[in-house]
Amino acid sequence: MQFEADLEAARARIADGVVRTPVWRSDELDEALGCAVWLKCEPLQRTGSFKLRGATSAVRALPSGTPGVVAVSSGNHAQAVAYAGRAAGLPVTVVMNADANAAKRESTLGYGAAIVSEGVDPTNREEIARELAEREGFALVHPFDDWNVIAGQGTAALELFEDVPSLDAVVTPIGGGGLLSGTALACRLASPSTRAYGAEPAASPDAQRSLAEGRRVRLDYAPSTISDGARTVQMGVRTFAVLSELCAGISLVDDDAARVAMALVWDTTKLLIEPTSALAIAAVAAGAVPGERIGVVLSGGNVDARALAETIRVEETA
Amino acid sequence: MQFEADLEAARARIADGVVRTPVWRSDELDEALGCAVWLKCEPLQRTGSFKLRGATSAVRALPSGTPGVVAVSSGNHAQAVAYAGRAAGLPVTVVMNADANAAKRESTLGYGAAIVSEGVDPTNREEIARELAEREGFALVHPFDDWNVIAGQGTAALELFEDVPSLDAVVTPIGGGGLLSGTALACRLASPSTRAYGAEPAASPDAQRSLAEGRRVRLDYAPSTISDGARTVQMGVRTFAVLSELCAGISLVDDDAARVAMALVWDTTKLLIEPTSALAIAAVAAGAVPGERIGVVLSGGNVDARALAETIRVEETA
Repeated sequence: MQFEADLEAARARIADGVVRTPVWRSDELDEALGCAVWLKCEPLQRTGSFKLRGATSAVRALPSGTPGVVAVSSGNHAQAVAYAGRAAGLPVTVVMNADANAAKRESTLGYGAAIVSEGVDPTNREEIARELAEREGFALVHPFDDWNVIAGQGTAALELFEDVPSLDAVVTPIGGGGLLSGTALACRLASPSTRAYGAEPAASPDAQRSLAEGRRVRLDYAPSTISDGARTVQMGVRTFAVLSELCAGISLVDDDAARVAMALVWDTTKLLIEPTSALAIAAVAAGAVPGERIGVVLSGGNVDARALAETIRVEETA
Repeated sequence: MQFEADLEAARARIADGVVRTPVWRSDELDEALGCAVWLKCEPLQRTGSFKLRGATSAVRALPSGTPGVVAVSSGNHAQAVAYAGRAAGLPVTVVMNADANAAKRESTLGYGAAIVSEGVDPTNREEIARELAEREGFALVHPFDDWNVIAGQGTAALELFEDVPSLDAVVTPIGGGGLLSGTALACRLASPSTRAYGAEPAASPDAQRSLAEGRRVRLDYAPSTISDGARTVQMGVRTFAVLSELCAGISLVDDDAARVAMALVWDTTKLLIEPTSALAIAAVAAGAVPGERIGVVLSGGNVDARALAETIRVEETA
């Protein structure tokens, strides 16, 4: 990968397909965290997460004549590929677990994709997607282990560094490592004194262990965590290679800490972030990220709003 | 009230004490509502609601030498008066029902106010506050029936009209009527072709009935609704006078519609609005507000974030 050139190329390729999201500050959040924090607001990205950057980068890099796109996901990557594919005029098929919830199905269908889910479970879904791609001639867009995806995800940090110079550190959640790899590469390209940190669910510590042991550790269980965007059981070959070299550290965050961090951001910024985004805030709150000036890439804001709204109770006090 | 002069005076008085909040659009929200909607984002106001405008307007208009301030509230007005009083260097006492929840107490205490709540309930709290004010020489800042408060609340719409000309209508939630009265006066001053509408909980229809019957109807029960900022049982003398003349209509919204509207805004904008703000969106969704270009004052974003975060469940799908 010609990292610098690839990042710049991805940025040019996706420029009119994604939002340049704002960077927010909150005095109250800074006070709670004990340092100055700049929030790169990918919840305000189209489709509600940073995943659109990588998906658009990958879809726009496909050879012309590619008849369609396949993605495996029940989360933000599905919506992002659906959106990017539709924007490119390509049919999109998403392979999704049979038990994915209605909100996720609806939003993926809402972006115009077809869903294949009959008989699909975590053990067979990649195979089903590969077969489907082969049969139809469709391109499979991997959620993280793809240089075009990684470069696309790195554009969020490129924008952040333009808006906020001299950050000591930047923190992102890590699942498969696409966002953190892109971010680390963006540091090297545009802000070499900024160190890139990851925050991973304690229930799903494959990246933390992989970097500690120097090999791609694969978890042999299905991680259970509220941070559903970071339940990956093994890093990609490419993301492992990048982060082995460029990651300054990965913190493990348990669900309780993620909940507290999520509520803190909701309270102090009124920005509805999803639990996966809260991982990065929790890492800062725990003091795991050295520095006075810290950037955080808030990865997304896709919670099941309908379900959450149902939990609001009438208070008795008038 | 010299309305025009009072509004402009309030605006000048509070200028360095409040945030000029942004106005947001969302294509997805427009699509769902079937018209073009501009959101004046008071959830991003300091203290999390528009109430800071009125409170700051009132506190800064107090005679010099006033030794302190009293407010009756268990909600956003309490926090706003606490904040505005502290900013003015005045002690603030908030009279709050004994059973007000911990989140509300904490945030009021967090802004430096003292709380009086022993033996306080909805039937005696105004009397307790008046006694306290008299004893200490403190000024009582009413949540809505005060010209300085009304003028302060109207500054949100003044800003909106500068940012977005030619609105057909502007909609706000209505409890006691301070925000809607200020907004209606702002229309007359700065955007005479814009009509002002209110949205009120169906469980607490005192304003809707008052304007229909031409007298200040008082509900003889404690309204039960998720829109806790609009549970007032009777309009003020001043807000009734203004709205009798200047309000284009009040829609009643039930809790289910408010929930759906709240989830819609959360989903499409990622802005955490509180149920009271959702009233205005629900009124637009119901088709109760004629026009193609509609402004909505989102009143606040103070939900109990900690409690809400606790409801996020681990999903089984990986």
